[in-house]
Amino acid sequence: MTDPQTQLETLRGQIDELDQQLVDLLAKRAAVTTQVGNIKSQTGMPTYVPEREAQLIASRRAQAQQQGVPPDLVEDLLRRIMRESYLTQNVQYRCATLPGTKVAVIGGRGALGKLIVSLFERSHYDVIVIDQTEWPQAKALLAGVKLCIVAVPIKQTIDIINTLDYLDDDCVLADVTSIKQAPLDAMLAVHKGPVVGLHPMFGPDAPGMVKQVVIICHGRQNEQYQWFLEQMITWGAQLTVSNASEHDADMAYIQVMRHFTSFVYGAHLHAEDPDLSSLIAHSSPIYRLELAMVGRLFAQDPNLYADIIFNNTENLALLKRFRTRFDEAIHLFETNDKAQFIEQFTQISKWFGDYAKTCLVDSKQLLLKADDDRMLRKK
Amino acid sequence: MTDPQTQLETLRGQIDELDQQLVDLLAKRAAVTTQVGNIKSQTGMPTYVPEREAQLIASRRAQAQQQGVPPDLVEDLLRRIMRESYLTQNVQYRCATLPGTKVAVIGGRGALGKLIVSLFERSHYDVIVIDQTEWPQAKALLAGVKLCIVAVPIKQTIDIINTLDYLDDDCVLADVTSIKQAPLDAMLAVHKGPVVGLHPMFGPDAPGMVKQVVIICHGRQNEQYQWFLEQMITWGAQLTVSNASEHDADMAYIQVMRHFTSFVYGAHLHAEDPDLSSLIAHSSPIYRLELAMVGRLFAQDPNLYADIIFNNTENLALLKRFRTRFDEAIHLFETNDKAQFIEQFTQISKWFGDYAKTCLVDSKQLLLKADDDRMLRKK
Repeated sequence: MTDPQTQLETLRGQIDELDQQLVDLLAKRAAVTTQVGNIKSQTGMPTYVPEREAQLIASRRAQAQQQGVPPDLVEDLLRRIMRESYLTQNVQYRCATLPGTKVAVIGGRGALGKLIVSLFERSHYDVIVIDQTEWPQAKALLAGVKLCIVAVPIKQTIDIINTLDYLDDDCVLADVTSIKQAPLDAMLAVHKGPVVGLHPMFGPDAPGMVKQVVIICHGRQNEQYQWFLEQMITWGAQLTVSNASEHDADMAYIQVMRHFTSFVYGAHLHAEDPDLSSLIAHSSPIYRLELAMVGRLFAQDPNLYADIIFNNTENLALLKRFRTRFDEAIHLFETNDKAQFIEQFTQISKWFGDYAKTCLVDSKQLLLKADDDRMLRKK
Repeated sequence: MTDPQTQLETLRGQIDELDQQLVDLLAKRAAVTTQVGNIKSQTGMPTYVPEREAQLIASRRAQAQQQGVPPDLVEDLLRRIMRESYLTQNVQYRCATLPGTKVAVIGGRGALGKLIVSLFERSHYDVIVIDQTEWPQAKALLAGVKLCIVAVPIKQTIDIINTLDYLDDDCVLADVTSIKQAPLDAMLAVHKGPVVGLHPMFGPDAPGMVKQVVIICHGRQNEQYQWFLEQMITWGAQLTVSNASEHDADMAYIQVMRHFTSFVYGAHLHAEDPDLSSLIAHSSPIYRLELAMVGRLFAQDPNLYADIIFNNTENLALLKRFRTRFDEAIHLFETNDKAQFIEQFTQISKWFGDYAKTCLVDSKQLLLKADDDRMLRKK
């Protein structure tokens, strides 16, 4: 009988061999998916096919079940592998209209602008980038352009749009700002031709448009920009049509309230000045995640957030009512009214409904994933 | 030349075959890691060996690099596989002291209590569960017990501890409450023997103690409970020693501020009553994550949060100062003082230092992972 340490070494050798085979497998799989990507881009088939993905996962889950491997493990691994393969399918795309069609991206050297430019270039368009350097020549550059996308910072969007009174009548005018009513109104006023507002629901750090949601607010002459929508679908985007004013009302809750809350939270921490590293060391992963959601704000551009918050006077009324609720909650605490706290808590739970439970489950799953990477752990 | 659809079918067949081999590989690997788990538990070797894990990952990353496979992909997959294998190493553990030693868990049928009971049972202790049914017989049951762990809800902890004046002098008394000073004082006052306070930094839904951080606040006669600390290390825990009062001061920032903020945020949404499903549809993944962090609170027990927030009058002063900062931020908005907002933002950024950037990077990584699972997407 060999000693446990020797046994362990032998078993570890076996694990290393199996893991080596895993890497071999991945290399072979990547070679095949690259071929798939090439066929898709040549024929214009969509990169992301939800049905195929669902079927692939279901078959492997069934096999896993039979072989006593946890199906969730297999699904997690396959999804991670597929995410990578969408990235390496980073090849050419079929052009949804006439190849060589002229497309201009104003702000095409910004983070989101660059991504848009790259996608059009890889789809055989003639792409014109207009940024600060080209701005004086914009009028000449935009002649003959069939699609002009405004992708500049939110506070410049309206001013830039207002200058575009010289586009060809058949040019599609579009923007990608996170608010929709004001840019859409400005585009409709300045331009006679087709108009559409877009809100890509992803940050500029997203690897592409695969699986990403893009909100579409129709402006005018929908049929004229059908090819542009099809092009985004070819890139893998999921399009959702919405109404500009409803969209913006929601944005007040989503963006303004969140950023304002995080700002005040950060201001409070800064003023109280606790030892941040001790705070992190004493936090469980869920608190570390919450702290990270505040911290991440302050790694970004203050001007952007000032613009989002100060942009709209309706936001002020909303935030003042928020303050009132803050005061009410403090009052519960001052009067030690636990019963009323629990009553309100229960009402809010009812309002959230099943979503609260979904959040709890999702965030737990997410923490397990963070844990794999030792993210959000003590630094 | 076959048509693209047929080519695609052939390639998809190849992918399915490779994925089948992947599941086979996982089954073989699980068989080996189960043997590893058995050897470790029989000999008392720790379940989690950071050096072995680091070496395993480094070798596969190097191989991946050579074969043109993204090393990050390989690392992500291996970490996910290892997480699972720690779970299936869910076998017996070596007992760090005399097998059959009597251990009692008060509140052993609660979520965290159950986990502790299971770990001790799988380590060959004689485990006594004391919950409501057994409470009247507690004194008799606790005779001869060498370790008594109080794992009841926070608001009952002190009352329960105060009754334990009859434990044997050599019994180790411990608690697992998320605050430390008050329980530690109570334990030291009621019991003459060894005392230690623990704060396990994970929720009761954690799959075990592997890789989890446990904060240790020493009470009295450390050498008497050394075996208990070793037992937790055998379970895979990472122990961190801290000071009870510092720990609790940090908790006020961590728990109370977060929960209070989320409560007010939920109360505000409830009172404003926007269409929640539309809000979710119009949110990008990062906002959905932020909303989920609020929503998850309301899927939980209001009594627990009432206890955490109302427990401590020092918290009231902290929250009142928080309100003042809220008012100050509203004032910036009312007076349209963008410059001052940006100035404060910059100061707070400096205070957060590099941590803000880490948060930004970590949260982006986390969102990519959430994306694999289509978590936090439109429901």
